[in-house]
Amino acid sequence: MNPIQHLVVIGTGLIGGSVSLALKRAGVVHRVTGVGRSRENLELAQQLGVVDDWTHDVARAVSSADMVLLSVPMNAYESLFAAMADHLPVGCVVTDAGSTKQTAIAAAKQILPNPERFIAAHPIAGTEQSGAAAAFAELFDQRLCIVTPESDSDAAALARVKEMWQQTGSRVEVMSASDHDEFLASVSHLPHLAAFALVNAVSKQATETQDPFRFAAGGFRDFTRIASSSPEMWRDIALCNRDALLHQIELFQVELNGLREALLADDDERLLNEFGAAKEARDNWLAKHGEGL
Amino acid sequence: MNPIQHLVVIGTGLIGGSVSLALKRAGVVHRVTGVGRSRENLELAQQLGVVDDWTHDVARAVSSADMVLLSVPMNAYESLFAAMADHLPVGCVVTDAGSTKQTAIAAAKQILPNPERFIAAHPIAGTEQSGAAAAFAELFDQRLCIVTPESDSDAAALARVKEMWQQTGSRVEVMSASDHDEFLASVSHLPHLAAFALVNAVSKQATETQDPFRFAAGGFRDFTRIASSSPEMWRDIALCNRDALLHQIELFQVELNGLREALLADDDERLLNEFGAAKEARDNWLAKHGEGL
Repeated sequence: MNPIQHLVVIGTGLIGGSVSLALKRAGVVHRVTGVGRSRENLELAQQLGVVDDWTHDVARAVSSADMVLLSVPMNAYESLFAAMADHLPVGCVVTDAGSTKQTAIAAAKQILPNPERFIAAHPIAGTEQSGAAAAFAELFDQRLCIVTPESDSDAAALARVKEMWQQTGSRVEVMSASDHDEFLASVSHLPHLAAFALVNAVSKQATETQDPFRFAAGGFRDFTRIASSSPEMWRDIALCNRDALLHQIELFQVELNGLREALLADDDERLLNEFGAAKEARDNWLAKHGEGL
Repeated sequence: MNPIQHLVVIGTGLIGGSVSLALKRAGVVHRVTGVGRSRENLELAQQLGVVDDWTHDVARAVSSADMVLLSVPMNAYESLFAAMADHLPVGCVVTDAGSTKQTAIAAAKQILPNPERFIAAHPIAGTEQSGAAAAFAELFDQRLCIVTPESDSDAAALARVKEMWQQTGSRVEVMSASDHDEFLASVSHLPHLAAFALVNAVSKQATETQDPFRFAAGGFRDFTRIASSSPEMWRDIALCNRDALLHQIELFQVELNGLREALLADDDERLLNEFGAAKEARDNWLAKHGEGL
């Protein structure tokens, strides 16, 4: 397939910047334009060779693009789609890197003139860092990238988006947006909510004379690492994936209540079985999928 | 204070073995006898210099001891106290390293002839490893060790136990057993239960065609690391600290329900506040207490 002539990366942070660097590494993109709000970050992106040029002007940038990547918080999609709607060239393909897919697709259908050429994607990769300075070409190597086409998606656009994500180094997998959102709610969004909730439960028990945090050790540090994530980003993800997340909270509460009942009944066998099943499932997962995480 | 003449370590695994090595490093113990059930582990402990000699016979071992350390699962305390009760020399001091303190003290009061010379302790340190081969002298350096005397504890025994734990490299802190159990339930026991519960909630959603674990990444790995802990050990800890743990589950469920309500109401401000408060508390904790964890 032909290389990308002009890629516009809206949001040149860790993810957007790393896509650009990975495609440059693969030699499959001629020109990359960065779009964003922070002049400082865009200038840095250009200095570091993450993008070739930059602008604040979405409409102008996309007018010569054959591929547009949205790599921004979920709550920015609608205004960005609106800004580009009248300026996308015929045949230009749009993809994204957001954590929830049904809302991204709904926004595209509502606003874009040719939503069948918006192919939603979610590369499951990241670090604690943000900004163009954190971007690196290897971020997606061997990581999963979920692509979630609709029944009316343009076949050529889908092929092009799948190929682009493969060229970043990702293993591309296609599934429905609703399956994606449910799975990600269970293994990512719910753990974040649970970590935030647990930290707050501990905080509220601090008194003037005693602070339970002082007795926390390595297990607590790792369990709560994701509670140090961006509150704004997780508010957006939680609201965008509200229904799946509510369902996952419910399933989690069923498990928690089961343990609570076993404790109340001094049911040592049930506790051992539940803990043992969890350990086995987690150890199996780590052995099968943990490498390189 | 005088060195320990004869330390008996019942349970020469990671914790018991490391206490021995740390006290040998400090030059404050003359002889260490290991007691346990596994001949293989005891022989290894002797070969590695973790203990000077070993026996399966609790009664004989303690009959010449001036300090006894229990470093075994909580459910073994009663039988071990019973085995040593008639053989402890006058003036011998007993301490332990268990994760819950009220049940340890209750067992001592019920079974030992001189429970005022049992001084309960909990060094907050550990690794994923177990067995004598995993022991190392530096395990307790700068870590907190909680000592939980009773109002009728023997003052000399308390001083001796505090000194011993200090000599392992720990920072010793004295508090009530009930405070200890509540604090540890909040920052350690509850996170373990929550991690076990979350892994089970994910497992149960696996179908023949799809496995949500496949989409889990680094955040999930860290959040669930403690779900790979020993099911037997955590069953015992959970049951020994049942009441505090039930209380902590309740407080956690209040927080989770708060987030659930905020989601249901699309209350973006509340979500942002809750997530922000958690991030701030966690970042503060890490900055203040995270070093060396």
